[in-house]
Amino acid sequence: MKQVRLIIVGFGTVGQGLAELLLTQRAVLQDQHALDIRLVGVANARHGFIYREDGLNIATVLTLAKERKPLTEHPDVQHWGTVLEGIQAADYDVMAEATLTNLRDAEPGLSYIRAALSKKAHVVTANKGPMALAAYELLTLAQQHGVQLRFEATVMAGTPVISTAREGMSGSRIQTMRGILNGTTNYILSAMEAGRDYAEVLTEAQAKGYAEADPTADVEGYDVMAKVLILAATVFGQPLQPAQVARTGITGVTRTHVLQAQQANQRIKLIAALNREGDHLKASIAPVALPLSDPLAHVEGTMNAITLHSDTLSAVTIIGPGAGRCETGQGLLADLIAVSRHQAK
Amino acid sequence: MKQVRLIIVGFGTVGQGLAELLLTQRAVLQDQHALDIRLVGVANARHGFIYREDGLNIATVLTLAKERKPLTEHPDVQHWGTVLEGIQAADYDVMAEATLTNLRDAEPGLSYIRAALSKKAHVVTANKGPMALAAYELLTLAQQHGVQLRFEATVMAGTPVISTAREGMSGSRIQTMRGILNGTTNYILSAMEAGRDYAEVLTEAQAKGYAEADPTADVEGYDVMAKVLILAATVFGQPLQPAQVARTGITGVTRTHVLQAQQANQRIKLIAALNREGDHLKASIAPVALPLSDPLAHVEGTMNAITLHSDTLSAVTIIGPGAGRCETGQGLLADLIAVSRHQAK
Repeated sequence: MKQVRLIIVGFGTVGQGLAELLLTQRAVLQDQHALDIRLVGVANARHGFIYREDGLNIATVLTLAKERKPLTEHPDVQHWGTVLEGIQAADYDVMAEATLTNLRDAEPGLSYIRAALSKKAHVVTANKGPMALAAYELLTLAQQHGVQLRFEATVMAGTPVISTAREGMSGSRIQTMRGILNGTTNYILSAMEAGRDYAEVLTEAQAKGYAEADPTADVEGYDVMAKVLILAATVFGQPLQPAQVARTGITGVTRTHVLQAQQANQRIKLIAALNREGDHLKASIAPVALPLSDPLAHVEGTMNAITLHSDTLSAVTIIGPGAGRCETGQGLLADLIAVSRHQAK
Repeated sequence: MKQVRLIIVGFGTVGQGLAELLLTQRAVLQDQHALDIRLVGVANARHGFIYREDGLNIATVLTLAKERKPLTEHPDVQHWGTVLEGIQAADYDVMAEATLTNLRDAEPGLSYIRAALSKKAHVVTANKGPMALAAYELLTLAQQHGVQLRFEATVMAGTPVISTAREGMSGSRIQTMRGILNGTTNYILSAMEAGRDYAEVLTEAQAKGYAEADPTADVEGYDVMAKVLILAATVFGQPLQPAQVARTGITGVTRTHVLQAQQANQRIKLIAALNREGDHLKASIAPVALPLSDPLAHVEGTMNAITLHSDTLSAVTIIGPGAGRCETGQGLLADLIAVSRHQAK
């Protein structure tokens, strides 16, 4: 049994989702992967960083988080007042980074990831900001320090897209990508096919928790843009700047557009696309009317999907959940297992 | 640059497909994976095993194979009269095994794989026989000798299914699998939707090279059964015997069945299914009328697809090519890269 000492930084929905999986998937981890993952540290901005070398009690930490109590109420812990101090001072093998996405400067996740990699800890992250804005810098830093940086959960949550494109299809050169990478907008567009208005469906999506109170990041395509930047840098090997992505959201899509598409046997989807054109990589996000022969046309509700065209495999399409507490935690867990599999000891 | 010495055993369509990729993907291998793969041996039943420590000329070997000339016409090679002698005597890091599938006793591939693993070489295989009938024995043998055995190309060619299920989704417990795992039968069923008869479409598929002169392995579901056995043993961890798979082919599907399904907004597909029921794993292969809401209903022509339900990811569907010279070679190549990535030196 291999022991791995884990810290979770950022302990909201996703960080807690991972902690829950450490409990529910313990048998899978031990039986299938001979892995004993010991949660030794947890941190959030409000309570700082708690650490216990022999392992924290996961159920206790989860209860404290749910009851919004200070993490320091966990017995027998060492405590640092800021997250960064803990990342730098504590002793661990892998950091799971799950702070909130910030597409302006990627902080605080960016500094956290730099700090962990610099002390030769592996990092798995669900945070789109650092990978969208600084993938090349961070992957280089990881390589320099002989550790791994994995980020499956940043695109389509735990649905394996990053590992499939970078490892499952390795040897193949990916030429184009087309995807439905945001569940909120796909839910809205799917619901509009019943003849309903954008505004009405958006209100419903907000009530169901599929859309935020401020839906801008989703409906204007910023969330998708972050994923496009991640795929450009890490699957196509060509980092892009946000300004290089032509971005149109779904706020201009009317009931009439949707119904006209239906009458033409098409469906409107918010399509993210990356295309190699000579040495350039062209990126766009826009509502597109897809023919029913396109597998992406049948992706309903909050599901996400991606089609990769490559020189050796024509088209490979992956359809799966793109968000969710457990689903995103699963992406971190798969990365954690991959990191441990390749770890020297 | 890491050097890997490769032998290819079985030099028909798939073995040659891999050799071609070693030429066309050389830049991808070097730039993205820092890998220099040197083909040191090639073997087939007719000409035995040729070996050259400094590397064979791939173009020369491919020309000899295409012109059906003895492989021994390659200059400066060592030669063993039988494939097995070469596997046992030659010096190499990885064997790519691409002999023909035999579902009776898995030979000669089974003996070849045993021999290579026993001398501590990694093995990548496209041959369904050994993995369908002896996956557990072979994976145990690989583990005992500290080497890897990979088999991506055995299910859906190079479309990443095995690696996605075993690595991309690791930590997740897969509960059910449903798939379209044979391109020939899917092509026939798709074509019958235009109102044509089974016999007529089969003749056309044979003319196009999608179906064999003796189509039994495809249309009676034996090819799919091999893949079901592989998935049962390696993704579900529960080896099954062929007799434990309830198998119905497509020979009983009539034009009337297909058109009746269409009128009910359904499509008939040959569906392979694996379901955990308590401690048991239930396996079946049969034509099923799918509702249009099922992503598998939209998989057309020779494409294949698989949907995996798991405890943490609900449904993940992968659609892609399931056969072909280059596509199957791609599966071997991805495995070869994976093996090299984890190799000690």
